[in-house]
Amino acid sequence: MKDYNAFVEELNVEPFAKESLSGLRFAVKDVLDVKGITASAGNPDWLRTHSPAKSHAPVVQRLLENGATLVGTTITDELMYSLNGENIHYGTPVNPKDHQRIPGGSSSGSAVAVAAKLVDFALGTDTAGSVRIPAAYCGLYGFRPTHNFLSIEGVIPLAPSFDTVGWMTCDTKTLLKVGEVLLQEESSAQAFTRVMVDKDAWALADEESKQALSPVLTTIENCFTQRESIEIADEGLVTWMNAFRTLQGIEVWKSHGEWIETVKPHFGPDIAARFEWASTLKEDESATEQQLKERIQNRLEKLLGDDGLLIIPTVPGKAPLVNMSGEEIEKRRSETIQLSSIAGLAGLPQVTIPVADVEGVPIGLSVIAGPKQDLRLLRWMDQHCDLWEK
Amino acid sequence: MKDYNAFVEELNVEPFAKESLSGLRFAVKDVLDVKGITASAGNPDWLRTHSPAKSHAPVVQRLLENGATLVGTTITDELMYSLNGENIHYGTPVNPKDHQRIPGGSSSGSAVAVAAKLVDFALGTDTAGSVRIPAAYCGLYGFRPTHNFLSIEGVIPLAPSFDTVGWMTCDTKTLLKVGEVLLQEESSAQAFTRVMVDKDAWALADEESKQALSPVLTTIENCFTQRESIEIADEGLVTWMNAFRTLQGIEVWKSHGEWIETVKPHFGPDIAARFEWASTLKEDESATEQQLKERIQNRLEKLLGDDGLLIIPTVPGKAPLVNMSGEEIEKRRSETIQLSSIAGLAGLPQVTIPVADVEGVPIGLSVIAGPKQDLRLLRWMDQHCDLWEK
Repeated sequence: MKDYNAFVEELNVEPFAKESLSGLRFAVKDVLDVKGITASAGNPDWLRTHSPAKSHAPVVQRLLENGATLVGTTITDELMYSLNGENIHYGTPVNPKDHQRIPGGSSSGSAVAVAAKLVDFALGTDTAGSVRIPAAYCGLYGFRPTHNFLSIEGVIPLAPSFDTVGWMTCDTKTLLKVGEVLLQEESSAQAFTRVMVDKDAWALADEESKQALSPVLTTIENCFTQRESIEIADEGLVTWMNAFRTLQGIEVWKSHGEWIETVKPHFGPDIAARFEWASTLKEDESATEQQLKERIQNRLEKLLGDDGLLIIPTVPGKAPLVNMSGEEIEKRRSETIQLSSIAGLAGLPQVTIPVADVEGVPIGLSVIAGPKQDLRLLRWMDQHCDLWEK
Repeated sequence: MKDYNAFVEELNVEPFAKESLSGLRFAVKDVLDVKGITASAGNPDWLRTHSPAKSHAPVVQRLLENGATLVGTTITDELMYSLNGENIHYGTPVNPKDHQRIPGGSSSGSAVAVAAKLVDFALGTDTAGSVRIPAAYCGLYGFRPTHNFLSIEGVIPLAPSFDTVGWMTCDTKTLLKVGEVLLQEESSAQAFTRVMVDKDAWALADEESKQALSPVLTTIENCFTQRESIEIADEGLVTWMNAFRTLQGIEVWKSHGEWIETVKPHFGPDIAARFEWASTLKEDESATEQQLKERIQNRLEKLLGDDGLLIIPTVPGKAPLVNMSGEEIEKRRSETIQLSSIAGLAGLPQVTIPVADVEGVPIGLSVIAGPKQDLRLLRWMDQHCDLWEK
C-alpha cells in the first residue's frame, strides 16, 4: 500500500450531478456500502464471507447526487471495535502529523486520507469516538451527528443504539458544506447564548494539553455572556464510561456474535479479547446501565436546550506512540471513552476542532450541542473559526 | 503472511466421513468454491466484487466426503492468466526448493503448500500448464486430467475448452489415492505397451535438463518392447503454441472481458498486457486454429490409443529466478507453452514426475496418456516409481 496506507481500495465513482459538492473528492470508511464492492470492516474473514453491496448506502448516494466524487474506501480497525487505528491485516494508516504516533480509530484511514490531503473529506462511523478521536489525533475537524439523525442504512453495525456516520475535513467550510447536504434543518433558536465547561472532563486532560487548549477555551468563553463551570456527571465519568462499555458490548455481541461463532475469524489480540469480553455480558443484567443512559439523555437535553454549548477536550492528550503496551492502551482507552461517552450516551452532536498542538502534535477541543442542533453547531463553528485559526 | 506465503486463508473444514483420504490435509487454489468464502482469483477487485460461495465445488465436496480435511485456500496468479507464480497483490509464494526462484503458476500457492509439506495434497487448476509447471518447479508430482473428465463446476473459469482441475503431491501413493476418489474408471486395456518420445519437445529442453533427465528416460523406455521416437507436430510446436494462445485468449476474454470493462480492476503489468491482447482477438478469425485443434485431438488419440504413453520434458529447464526481465519471461512462457499445449490442445491426461534436479533445482519429466486413461496412467506411475525414486 502507498499513500500513507489510508486506502483499502482506490475507486473513481463519478458524481451523478453538478451540485454544491462538485469538485470535492471524498473517501468512505470500509464499512459503508459502495455498489458492487464488498466492505471488509477491516477483517479479511468478513470480506470473504460477505457479498458485494447491491446499492450505495443512502449517505454515500446523497453525496454523489450532490456532486462529490468518491475516490476510495479506507482502512478501519477490525469491526470498528477499537480507538487506536492499528490493523494487523491491512496495516496501520500513517498519521501524517507524526509518523511515530497512532492515527486513532476506528476511522483511521478516513482521518489519514484527509490529513494527508488525498481527499477533501471522508466519511467515518462513530460509536465510541471513532470519528472524533482520529480527527483529534490527525489535527482535523471531525463531526459526530445527533444519534438517529442521519441514516445508518448500508453501514456495518457495531452497536446500533450508539452508531452514527460522521465526517472529517481540514477546514470548517467543507465540514459545514457536507453537513448542509446530509443534515436536515430542525433547529429554531437564532444563536447559542450559553457556554458550559465540564470540570470532570477537563480534569482528564493532561497538563500540557490543558495549557495548550486554555487560551482558545478562554477566547471562546469570552464570546458568551452566560458562562458556567459545571459537573455533568453526578455519578462520575468513570461510571458513565463503564455503563457505555457495557451497553455497547451487549449490542456488539448481538450484532456480531453469531458471525464470530460461525466463522471463527482471525482477529488481532486486543480485538479478540474485547469480543471475548462482550460475549460474557448479559442484557438482562444491564437495567442499571440502561436507566443511567436515559437519565443522562434527559439531563443533558435539559442542560443544553437549543441555546447551550458544552466544551470538553476531545482526547486526554496527544496521540500515543504506535505499538503501545497493553496497559498503556487500556489506560488511554478508558480515559478517552470517559470523554467520548458524554455525547455517546446522550446521543448528542459533537464537533472536534484542531485548535492547538503540543510540541507539533495536534490535540482537539470539542463542542457539544443539544439534540438535532447539528447544522447550527456547524454554522457556529464556521462563523467563529477566526477564534482559533491564526 | 507466513508459511512460505502459500495461503490466502487458513481454514479448518472437517471431513464429512472417515474414508480413504482420512488423515490427509489439503488446500485448494483460491479459485475453487469453498462454502461461505469468496474466492479472490488472486485479485482484490475480484474478491470485492463477488459473493461468497453457497456450496463447495463438487470436487472439494467429494474430497471432504472421502475423509480429507481442508486447511486453506492458496495464492494464485491473477485470474490464473500467468505461469510464473508471482502476484503483486498477495505476494509471491516462496519456492521451498530454492527461495531465489519462482514457484511457477498459476497454482503457485498450492504447489508451495505441498512442497513445504504444509499439506498432503493441494488442488490447482490447469489450463495452459498451471498445475504441471509449478509442480515441476517445486519438485512435485502433478496431475492434469483428461479435459471434461472431472467437474469444473464451482471453479472460476479461464478458458473452459482447456480448463481442468488437477492436484499435486510429494509422492505417487497420494497422487493415485486422490485420483481414485475423483476419477471415474473408464479404461479397458491391461497395460501400456508402447512408449513414444517426441523429438521436438525434447529439443526445447536446455542441455543441463536433457542430461539430467536422460538416464530416467532411458530406464523408462527400457520397460517397453515397443519404443518410438516421433515428431507429433507436423506444423511445428510453435504453430501449436500460437494456436493454443489464440484459442485460449478468445475464451479468456469471453470469460472475463465484461467484468474487466465494468470493474476496471488493478492488474500487475504483465497480466494487464495479456488481457489487453486477449481483448483484440476475434473468434470469427480463428477457424484455422480451431481446425488445427481438432486435427491434433484426432491425431494424438489415434497415436496413443489406450496402450501408448508419450514422454516429454515438463518444462524447458529449472525455475527462473524471481523478477525476470520482460524478455526472459516471454521467452520462457513461449517455450513452456509449446510443451504444455500438447496435452492442452489434445485434452489429454498428463502427469509430471520429479525425476531429477539440476544443481539441486528440480525439473520434471512428463508422461501423457490417451483420453480417459487417467487412473491407469496414475497406477502405472505408482507401480513404476522405483525407476526414478532412489
